[in-house]
Amino acid sequence: MPKKVNHQQRRQTIAKATWQVILKKGMEGATVRNIAKEAGLSLGALRYYFSTQEQLILYAMRLVKERAADRIVHIADQELPPKDKVLRILMEIVPANKETRAEMEVWFAFVAYARNKKEFFMEENDGIYTAVQRIIGCLADQRLLQPSLDIDIECEKLYALVDGMALHALLEPERLDKARIEKVFIDYLDSVLL
Amino acid sequence: MPKKVNHQQRRQTIAKATWQVILKKGMEGATVRNIAKEAGLSLGALRYYFSTQEQLILYAMRLVKERAADRIVHIADQELPPKDKVLRILMEIVPANKETRAEMEVWFAFVAYARNKKEFFMEENDGIYTAVQRIIGCLADQRLLQPSLDIDIECEKLYALVDGMALHALLEPERLDKARIEKVFIDYLDSVLL
Repeated sequence: MPKKVNHQQRRQTIAKATWQVILKKGMEGATVRNIAKEAGLSLGALRYYFSTQEQLILYAMRLVKERAADRIVHIADQELPPKDKVLRILMEIVPANKETRAEMEVWFAFVAYARNKKEFFMEENDGIYTAVQRIIGCLADQRLLQPSLDIDIECEKLYALVDGMALHALLEPERLDKARIEKVFIDYLDSVLL
Repeated sequence: MPKKVNHQQRRQTIAKATWQVILKKGMEGATVRNIAKEAGLSLGALRYYFSTQEQLILYAMRLVKERAADRIVHIADQELPPKDKVLRILMEIVPANKETRAEMEVWFAFVAYARNKKEFFMEENDGIYTAVQRIIGCLADQRLLQPSLDIDIECEKLYALVDGMALHALLEPERLDKARIEKVFIDYLDSVLL
């Protein structure tokens, strides 16, 4: 009797193997062959789940995004004072530990790669701008923001701050460690909150 | 009599051809062969100037950096009110036109690529953190900043803001156009200046 395979799980295993290959060899090394090898599967088995490299990479990237989104929703659902909640969400977006740094590294490699494959990856974005708009929107609705703020421009600023910090935390994890990231966000929040 | 060749100029021509190839085909396409073709040179002629692909890419990247640094120094040398000068420098760093957007695109492709070639590109950084430290330092020396600011954290914040905006201006040039970039920086400067 053939072994039962959980297809959903198998796809996730392949996606995680894809991340590993990207982390080790960069996007240039993320060939179907290398990914199959990392996942311990035959080329044929991998092709059963993903018939093209683009499909595979797209799935692997969406999984990065979903995992991050799940973590954020989990925090948003908790009963916390607004400032603490926002701080925790921001700390979840900017990679402050090895696991989230790896996710962000995969994401940036993907963004650079997708620039030259627009026909496949047109619609992908990481959803961070929307997340930031929600955060600022919630704070505004609760009348917790300085009334002089331009809400639209504040969203753009926080969005740039978050992605800039994410990029720097990835490139210079020793200089920009978790404590320093947190300090910047607390400083930012103190400057916009009443 | 053989034609006289200006070697410095020839190297720059090759570097610019490298940028073009990166813009068209991404870092994966930036092979010595493709670059020679773009520059209208034989493989042998190109190898005369750059014996390895890494040397060539390193030179091409340093030229991006030098050109941006020259533009910034040119602004810094002008007689301008401090706020206007800082705004003009920030607008020079974040790509707000086609030419600087191409430079930034090349730079980001390079950063992603260099992550997996640390043996060659260890020491490269774009110098923006240093530039930001100088800007904040000058404003502090002239006592133009809000006295409550934490100078060290403010540098980190502005550095993230600048690189985040640069990344977004590159990825979403239509949403984040020149006028909007300027609006964000004016808003930022108004929030930190006395």
